[in-house]
Parts: sequence; C-alpha cells; structure tokens
Amino acid sequence: MAAEAIRALESAEVVLGYKTYLELVEELLGDKTVISSGMRKEVERCRAAIEHALAGKNVALISSGDAGIYGMAGLVLDICRDGRIDVRKWDEASRETLSGKSENPDEPRTFFLRVVPGIPAFSAAAALLGAPLMHDFAAVSLSDHLTAWEVIEKRLSAAAQADFVLALYNPRSKSRPDLLDKARQILLRFRSPHTPAAIVRKAMRPGQWKCLTTLGDLPVEEVDMQSVIIVGNSQTYVWKDWMVTPRGYLDKYSVSEF
Amino acid sequence: MAAEAIRALESAEVVLGYKTYLELVEELLGDKTVISSGMRKEVERCRAAIEHALAGKNVALISSGDAGIYGMAGLVLDICRDGRIDVRKWDEASRETLSGKSENPDEPRTFFLRVVPGIPAFSAAAALLGAPLMHDFAAVSLSDHLTAWEVIEKRLSAAAQADFVLALYNPRSKSRPDLLDKARQILLRFRSPHTPAAIVRKAMRPGQWKCLTTLGDLPVEEVDMQSVIIVGNSQTYVWKDWMVTPRGYLDKYSVSEF
Repeated sequence: MAAEAIRALESAEVVLGYKTYLELVEELLGDKTVISSGMRKEVERCRAAIEHALAGKNVALISSGDAGIYGMAGLVLDICRDGRIDVRKWDEASRETLSGKSENPDEPRTFFLRVVPGIPAFSAAAALLGAPLMHDFAAVSLSDHLTAWEVIEKRLSAAAQADFVLALYNPRSKSRPDLLDKARQILLRFRSPHTPAAIVRKAMRPGQWKCLTTLGDLPVEEVDMQSVIIVGNSQTYVWKDWMVTPRGYLDKYSVSEF
Repeated sequence: MAAEAIRALESAEVVLGYKTYLELVEELLGDKTVISSGMRKEVERCRAAIEHALAGKNVALISSGDAGIYGMAGLVLDICRDGRIDVRKWDEASRETLSGKSENPDEPRTFFLRVVPGIPAFSAAAALLGAPLMHDFAAVSLSDHLTAWEVIEKRLSAAAQADFVLALYNPRSKSRPDLLDKARQILLRFRSPHTPAAIVRKAMRPGQWKCLTTLGDLPVEEVDMQSVIIVGNSQTYVWKDWMVTPRGYLDKYSVSEF
C-alpha cells in the first residue's frame, strides 16, 4: 500500500468503500465513521463521500489498487461536475481554507479533493510474475457493463496487432462468463497460442493465487472478477517460473558471462 | 512511495540506483553501502546488484515509479537468464535458505529476488491531473534507443485508432528532440486537436510541474525525459482544472442533482 494512502486514511474522519476493500485496511480504521457498501453501489458511495466532504469532514473514499485506474476518482469528479459542486484541488494550504470556510448559503458548495495514487492491480500482479510489463502495454477492462462490447473488441484487436503486452481487468463475471473466451479468441488472431499469459488473483492479499500458462491454454474457468490477466507480447519469455518482457538491452549491449 | 518499498530499502545492506533517484531517498540510506551510477549505465548497475546478491548481501536496486514498468526488474532477470544464474523467488521462507546456503562451488550460483511493486509515474501524474486514466489506456515509450521507431509508430496509431487514453514515457530526449512532435502528428491523424492532453514533470517530487493543454497545442519544448504525457480519449473532458476520462456511470445511472 502507498505510504501516502496510509497517511491519508489515518487522518480521515469518515472512510467509505466497498466492504471487501474496507476489510483489508481494518486495522487502520480505529474509531472512524466507516460506511461500507456492496458492489455496483459506486454512484451512491461517491455521493455519500461528497456529502460528508461538503459537511466539512475529512473523508477517505477507498478503491483497491490505484483509485485513478478503474477506481472511484473519476466518478467523484463526474458527479461534482454534474451536480455543479465546486471541487478544488487539495493542498497543504487548503486545509486552512477548509476549516475557515464561509457558511453563506449563497456561495457554491465547495470541498477540496486530492487523488492519492496507489499501486495498480497490474503492477502487483506483474511483480509476482517477474517483469512482464517492461515494455509498452495496454490495460483493457472486459466488462461490458458500461462499455459496448464492440469498443472492447476493437481495443483488444488493436492492442494485439500492435504487439502491446495486455493487462485485462474485470475478466470474467458470473453474469457474463463467456467474455474472456471471446477476448482470447480475438487475441489469438494476432498472437501465437504459445504466448505467455498469467492469471493473478488477489495479488498481495490474503488468498493470493497465480497461474503462469499460455494464451492457448489459459484456464478460463479459474478466472473471476478479482483476477487480473497479463498476456505477453511477441518477445515475452518464461524462464524458470519468471515471466519477462525484455526491453532489448541485451540485444543492444553485449553482456559478458558471469 | 510504497510502504513495502520503504521496508525493503530499510532492510537492505547495499543500495544501487541512478544517482538522481538515490537522492530522493537519501534519508533512508543511513550507513548502507550506496552505489550510484549515471544514465544509460543500466546493465552495469544490474550486474553489480546481482554480484552483491550472489555474495550474500541483502540488496535493493531502485527504480523510480514502478520497477516493473520501464524499470530495472526485467533487466535483472534478462541478465540472470543470459548468465545462467539461478535466481529464485524470494519469500519469507527463503530468508532461512539464503542464510544457510551451501558454499559448494559446484552448485549453481543462487540468489533470491523479489520485485516490489511501486506507484508508476503515470499513476502519480494522473492523480495530480484528476482522473484521466479511468478507462482503457496504453503506455508507450517514445525512446527509439532500444525499440525501432516503426514499432513505436505502429503502437501509437493502433492505440489512437482504438481510442485508448495514452501515457507517453521518455517523450523527448536531447539527442532526439523531434520524436514527440512526430508522435503528436500520428495521434492527430485519429484524434481531434481539442483532445485534452497534459505534461507532468517530476510528479510528486521536488520541482514538480504540470501543464494541462490540448493535443493540438501541446508545448513540445517544455517536455523533457523526466516528463510523462497523458493524452485523453474521445470522451476525456476538462472541467475547472481537472482532467477526467469518464467510465460511463452517469450515462448508465441517473444521478439526481444535489
């Protein structure tokens, strides 16, 4: 977890999040007001966070991984823009302003926001595997809940054709168990079935599980929404149990033997 | 910085890194052996780190951002594979094995490696801007030092065509000042000049600087190798000084006004 995220959480009075993620930071919650909610309650959760912030509270809205990558940061801003709420950039100086803010009801409602960057799920997954993201890569969410499948399909085939390493998010839900296999078929149009691929579930969390395999043999049934899938590019290799995408240093420089 | 990276650095006896990055963690270095080197000394730096690890030292090789994204993690593995060094996955249990390892010269030389994930430069940059990486995105390095320009060009146009948000690394070196403008021209074939774009230099470090602009007006001359450039997709908006790529929640759910 990012040290800055720990500090932000420690200073918060109200903490909101998806219940599974709140459990992961339980020891940091102490006697704070904790508002836990279920999946697909993202809009309600962000609205509640904004209401508490407008009421002058120091609020932490938590996401897993990086809040700026398929997390809650964007939705908070979407809602503020839609609701004409004056959200400003938080910095050390704004603490003062916040505590001294006007109670005049004619002034627009204001709060200060800071997005604290974290360790994205694909970074944690990649670290467990070795170094598969060492060269250009693309992150694609397979969820067609908010994005048309045609758009997802177009992105997958563009990324596969241009030899990007791929990190696949939301790879397989209970309601749409077939999307991952459809995605795999698209990638196989441009990539060898021997391309290294890996599933990492709950990276660096209790219940962590990983599987290093190939695009052709990917065990689709092992994948759930808490998994990230990494598919190598044409240069990615597996050596011992490490998955690595070389950047090309050793082609450029001669490295004498040890 | 990631809490786990701080702990790893604290427990290290030998720390190696590019001198600019070592300065950023100076207060964590204490009386450790510190080996600092210049740019483009990546291979030498990794080899030295491996030699110290083989000698039984607890070594930290630092990268800025995430060591697994255009960092040093992959090169260490490339060199070990090339030099037939037996590098194994580090875990708590391997500490024991390490301290009790055999001195038999016939056994292959072994050390234990752990990649500690960090906060990638694009995550730090995105957090300062708002939430531009909320939807599918691609990371592309513009450096043609190790990658053919034709490959870079192909990736840029594929990513632009498929409407990925883009994070551009190594955007402009002194020896190749023109690559960024070439990249921009490729993106402009598929994206409006009004597409929000931003330059972030030294995100969350001393000397931090950022500029929110458009793809058409991007001030190329302000960009250096310590900058990351974020180019929005067709849905990315700028509202106040926030750059946001919506995921589509508000199109799906009606959000009543505050």
